[in-house]
Amino acid sequence: MNANQLLAQIREKAGYLCIGLDTDYNSLPKFLLEKEYPVFEFNKRIIKATADIAVAYKLNLAFYESLGVAGWMSMELTVNYARSHYPEIFLIADAKRGDIGNTSRMYASAFFHNLDFDAITVNPYMGRDSVIPFLEYQDKWIILLALTSNEGAEDFQMLKTNNRRNYLFEYVIKTSISWGNTDNIMYVAGATRPEWIKKIRKIIPQHFLLVPGIGAQGGNLEEVSEAGLNERCGLLVNASRSIIYADITNKFDDAARKKALEIQREMEIYLKRKKIL
Amino acid sequence: MNANQLLAQIREKAGYLCIGLDTDYNSLPKFLLEKEYPVFEFNKRIIKATADIAVAYKLNLAFYESLGVAGWMSMELTVNYARSHYPEIFLIADAKRGDIGNTSRMYASAFFHNLDFDAITVNPYMGRDSVIPFLEYQDKWIILLALTSNEGAEDFQMLKTNNRRNYLFEYVIKTSISWGNTDNIMYVAGATRPEWIKKIRKIIPQHFLLVPGIGAQGGNLEEVSEAGLNERCGLLVNASRSIIYADITNKFDDAARKKALEIQREMEIYLKRKKIL
Repeated sequence: MNANQLLAQIREKAGYLCIGLDTDYNSLPKFLLEKEYPVFEFNKRIIKATADIAVAYKLNLAFYESLGVAGWMSMELTVNYARSHYPEIFLIADAKRGDIGNTSRMYASAFFHNLDFDAITVNPYMGRDSVIPFLEYQDKWIILLALTSNEGAEDFQMLKTNNRRNYLFEYVIKTSISWGNTDNIMYVAGATRPEWIKKIRKIIPQHFLLVPGIGAQGGNLEEVSEAGLNERCGLLVNASRSIIYADITNKFDDAARKKALEIQREMEIYLKRKKIL
Repeated sequence: MNANQLLAQIREKAGYLCIGLDTDYNSLPKFLLEKEYPVFEFNKRIIKATADIAVAYKLNLAFYESLGVAGWMSMELTVNYARSHYPEIFLIADAKRGDIGNTSRMYASAFFHNLDFDAITVNPYMGRDSVIPFLEYQDKWIILLALTSNEGAEDFQMLKTNNRRNYLFEYVIKTSISWGNTDNIMYVAGATRPEWIKKIRKIIPQHFLLVPGIGAQGGNLEEVSEAGLNERCGLLVNASRSIIYADITNKFDDAARKKALEIQREMEIYLKRKKIL
């Protein structure tokens, strides 16, 4: 998917909501456990109930890998289901991968060729040749970790570097923008530090940002939107637990839809305020 | 496995060789392709032919994930085979994982609980709370990326930081040593920069280092050993392609054994030189 298609979808749905499928087997409604692939069944109902609201879904790979082969199967089934029923949806593998060139090439093949994800989150620590192989696919994206939403972001990402001119995450952004372009690189910027999203926006006025951390992690949607929206929206804001576990009865999907709608309606206000709608 | 058990194995085998199972389906001997899990069959024969020589095996996750469900199955079969036939072997998941706390916890469960790996490679970029969940398992290890073997290591790992006192990778080491101890943290230090292994050894005289990059990537075993050996060995040196693809006929396992023996015999010299044997 290219940036224009993504923006068209954002305009149509009047929102920039990404739903995080951090689907934890141990948190599933009990009646799903008798199915062959309970995680997939859960995801399918969440997607079905929210696909006219959310523009993107983000699968957190750890939750699938922790179930081994059955988890990998649930992930494949989820991607294939979303892709075949809702082809306009932007699908993100939240995998935080990155390795030497020949190995990143294998990861790229796993997520862009064998699985039809649109984007993968990538860790910048190993540098340029660990990132480039992901950029060799047409209409696919990397979402490079810049400033993450967790406390540990302060340990290294917020170190002063480059003769004290930049924090490490700023230097990562400034260095990596030349590796691709605004149509194949997004950046992760955590919702828990909206004042920093503003500063990141100054460095990269055009790029999309993936913003995790609203909801369970405490980030504020209005502050994030104020700081991050640009003239082609430029934001995907992710919420996971607050949507998918809004309810754990048989009506969990209705509850997820209700919660997603709440967020989308708030986003619609911010999009109008910025004259994107 | 704890450090004493690892050292006992190193003494017994007179070497510190880790064999990298970067098993590429497209490079397999053709006669294996008719098996149900060709990658596992290949790994099994490599392990069987070298388990009295190598102290560790490192599975590069990308190569398994690129095959989807069948790849994950081959990885599980390989781990279970090695664990049940050669319980003394040190098994490394070269996964380069790391995410916010609740997600790292899921990765730890995937690799330490569901799969019985001894160690996992972890990327430090997201900081302390992304690493700690892996350290909560008894007798399991993380192998934290410090200075990697690829060209891109220069992009961020070799940035001056902390008031120009440290390179980033040095600062990562100095910060993270307090998160665990010499019995549950190792560091990745690439063989392609032996002069840096010497400097890393000064910062962490006691820790084990996992050193990739000899063989296909061009690192030199003698230089690495000179720089990195300490009084309890403190090194695992990995070779992948130069061993496992030494030959692609039906005798690929004999060729791998021969190549592994060559490296082990060289290691034996360095162990004696340092009076570890």
